[in-house]
Amino acid sequence: MEEILKEVLSRIKPKDEERNKVRQIFEEIKNRIEEKAKSLGINVRVELEGSVAKDTWISTDKDIDIFILFPHGTDKEKAKEIGLEIAKYGAGENWKIAYAEHPYIKKKIDEYEVDIVPGIEIKEGERPLTAVDRTPLHTKFIKSKMNEEMKDEVRLLKQFMKGIGVYGAELKIEGFSGYLCELLVLYYKNFKNVIKNASNWRPKTIIDYMNYYKDIPCEEIFDAPLIVIDPIDRRRNVAAAVSLQSYSIFVMASKFFLEKPSIEFFFPSKLNVNLNDIINEIKKREISLVMIKMKCPKIPSDILWGEIKKTINKFVKLIENYDFEVIDYKSWSDEENRIIFLIEVEKRKLRRGKIHQGPKIWYDEDLKKFLDKYINNEKVLAGPFIKNERIYVEILRKYNDIKDLLINEIKNLKLSKDIMNEINKGFEVYVDEEILKECEGIEDEIFSFIRKKPLWLK
Amino acid sequence: MEEILKEVLSRIKPKDEERNKVRQIFEEIKNRIEEKAKSLGINVRVELEGSVAKDTWISTDKDIDIFILFPHGTDKEKAKEIGLEIAKYGAGENWKIAYAEHPYIKKKIDEYEVDIVPGIEIKEGERPLTAVDRTPLHTKFIKSKMNEEMKDEVRLLKQFMKGIGVYGAELKIEGFSGYLCELLVLYYKNFKNVIKNASNWRPKTIIDYMNYYKDIPCEEIFDAPLIVIDPIDRRRNVAAAVSLQSYSIFVMASKFFLEKPSIEFFFPSKLNVNLNDIINEIKKREISLVMIKMKCPKIPSDILWGEIKKTINKFVKLIENYDFEVIDYKSWSDEENRIIFLIEVEKRKLRRGKIHQGPKIWYDEDLKKFLDKYINNEKVLAGPFIKNERIYVEILRKYNDIKDLLINEIKNLKLSKDIMNEINKGFEVYVDEEILKECEGIEDEIFSFIRKKPLWLK
Repeated sequence: MEEILKEVLSRIKPKDEERNKVRQIFEEIKNRIEEKAKSLGINVRVELEGSVAKDTWISTDKDIDIFILFPHGTDKEKAKEIGLEIAKYGAGENWKIAYAEHPYIKKKIDEYEVDIVPGIEIKEGERPLTAVDRTPLHTKFIKSKMNEEMKDEVRLLKQFMKGIGVYGAELKIEGFSGYLCELLVLYYKNFKNVIKNASNWRPKTIIDYMNYYKDIPCEEIFDAPLIVIDPIDRRRNVAAAVSLQSYSIFVMASKFFLEKPSIEFFFPSKLNVNLNDIINEIKKREISLVMIKMKCPKIPSDILWGEIKKTINKFVKLIENYDFEVIDYKSWSDEENRIIFLIEVEKRKLRRGKIHQGPKIWYDEDLKKFLDKYINNEKVLAGPFIKNERIYVEILRKYNDIKDLLINEIKNLKLSKDIMNEINKGFEVYVDEEILKECEGIEDEIFSFIRKKPLWLK
Repeated sequence: MEEILKEVLSRIKPKDEERNKVRQIFEEIKNRIEEKAKSLGINVRVELEGSVAKDTWISTDKDIDIFILFPHGTDKEKAKEIGLEIAKYGAGENWKIAYAEHPYIKKKIDEYEVDIVPGIEIKEGERPLTAVDRTPLHTKFIKSKMNEEMKDEVRLLKQFMKGIGVYGAELKIEGFSGYLCELLVLYYKNFKNVIKNASNWRPKTIIDYMNYYKDIPCEEIFDAPLIVIDPIDRRRNVAAAVSLQSYSIFVMASKFFLEKPSIEFFFPSKLNVNLNDIINEIKKREISLVMIKMKCPKIPSDILWGEIKKTINKFVKLIENYDFEVIDYKSWSDEENRIIFLIEVEKRKLRRGKIHQGPKIWYDEDLKKFLDKYINNEKVLAGPFIKNERIYVEILRKYNDIKDLLINEIKNLKLSKDIMNEINKGFEVYVDEEILKECEGIEDEIFSFIRKKPLWLK
């Protein structure tokens, strides 16, 4: 295992040139911000935050978080507005506005993703005005607690999480944030010990580094599979975003890594499947794979993923309401151009008829209504007939091909306005072989969706 | 309606020549029996019983019941043994032994089915030694209560029951016995009034002609949709054999007959379908029709039908256990050569794979067992994969063709000894088109099974 960890670390630990590059980017932006603030006669502090500041960042994840901190007590709206203006100036050209709880500035500089975020200073234990206001305290806390070795342990854990697909608290992943990884290492001392402990986790694991909840049953206060109390804010579960799915994957991968350590957990091999592999897999399993493709609305990532998840749930419900059997489903988006919904069903086509239950024959009015409707109805394939004390018919289904169903009924679903707007502009439904034309660039995604076995499971 | 009833009556009311024929058959057999009894020095009375004696028989149902009655107090075993010997002599040649509760003699004379049944005289209200001992009292009771017109009303009711398929208390039909029809007419005065009342029946209808249960809630004593207290034995529900299905059919047919009287209720038209009609119907509904054919064991009719019903239930359970979806089923037998089980299913073939649920991933031992079994198993088509907190695989089904399933697994079912004996000698399974070779003579049965709409429902 030691060999593997060494190898992983050598691949992810930032090199001097990377560090210099980051430092240089930060200094430049900082100078521009301070210059602008001065010209406006405003007092702000520009700080490097996040994993770069804490020196727990990895080369495979090049985010630079720069905070513009207004003094304690600044008006929230003012900080937000002026902060954004200064941030734009700091970024120079070609920036984009992004949205978390409040807007901030995003800029791509070479391979680095730079976020410039306005915030207001708070003190430890103080209730933050916005979600980002805690960040400087997190940075300070971690910096004060971690030595060099621990930072590398954090790096290993982050890469492990990345490799098995559970790194990131965003709605798309519903996994483990960087700060959460840091707290886990702080609590369990090193990567191996995190993994060892995690391999025995069950839901409602509680990690309370500061021992805030010594005498309080915090599993009753927080409802999540993993509860990690934020050392700088006891009201917050740092792991609130971790879904049961991500949690389970991490626990099971930990068990497996301990038994058979392999670099595959950190760097899963590319599948490099081609279109035929996908079709063969569909045929092997004798399923039908349905792909719904639409344009992506321009909305903040987490909002987008919230809507994507709600949307696919409604698709699945629609399909099931019409008696098609859904085996599995998954959504994908580049968050810019396409959203793709994949739905795996037992069969593309159903039998054309469906048994429809009528009333008990004792209820004359109901019986009469039922028979008036069905006794000479072209859509009736069999019956009416009596079974025990009820009357039934077999009627033609409205849809017996899932493609017809989706094409005709998606428009009638109650979806979010953003999604509905794009749907109204157009969407496509592909089934099985038809998918091939449309899956360029996501062949691996589709293949592993059908194959279902994680790469590290051997 | 009057026209129709007149027409029906003209077709079913025995003609003089039929009456003479019956009288002649009875006299001949009676003479032979008395001769034999005399020679054995035994005292018996030979009596015509059943619908012929009561003059409620119909030309479409030519049964002659002749009873050999031993005096009150005769030993049951002795009556049974000597009775059967005398009955054989009475029948002459070419008789068969049949079994109800006790053996009796059956003989076909021209188109008449003659039953010669030994019994022991009992008095009214006395507990009978065997089920047949009540018959003479029923005969006496009905004869004492019915005038000529009422007998014709009984004939109409019997033919109505026959036409809609619910005439007969035997297990095959689970319907209305002749005696039950007589009691209904006695109670409601005439055919039309029976139908009028029946059209408003709900389950737990109680008919207590003698008012035995004036102050006793007899729906708590008898558990059946229709409760008709036997005037000659208050402990007996004459309608105990009527299933909810037969009951419902009679009630609904009554509603329909009142609304649109037609001769079709009494004499349903022959369908005269051919083999293509059957196939077209199967194709129209996109179902699969499975036929299981076996030899018929030589056992009394009611016992046979009991076993047939248990058997088809086990077939259905077997099929459902392997995930095939059963829509409907029905058995048929000539009670001599063939038993045919018809099972209508959604699809002949299932997808080859099936999702198989494993343990929650927290349970290390269970998880290990599951993975040891499936992680490198040729039968696994997808996974193992995690969903929420559980592990799953998709594995190959043992059977994905219903024919394979039945051919291989029927032998392993726990069926009655009689049925099992025949199964072991051989059985056949046919699906869809294959059925055609084997459905000669029962085309109408199969067609109406798939079509499901009763002929009188228009």
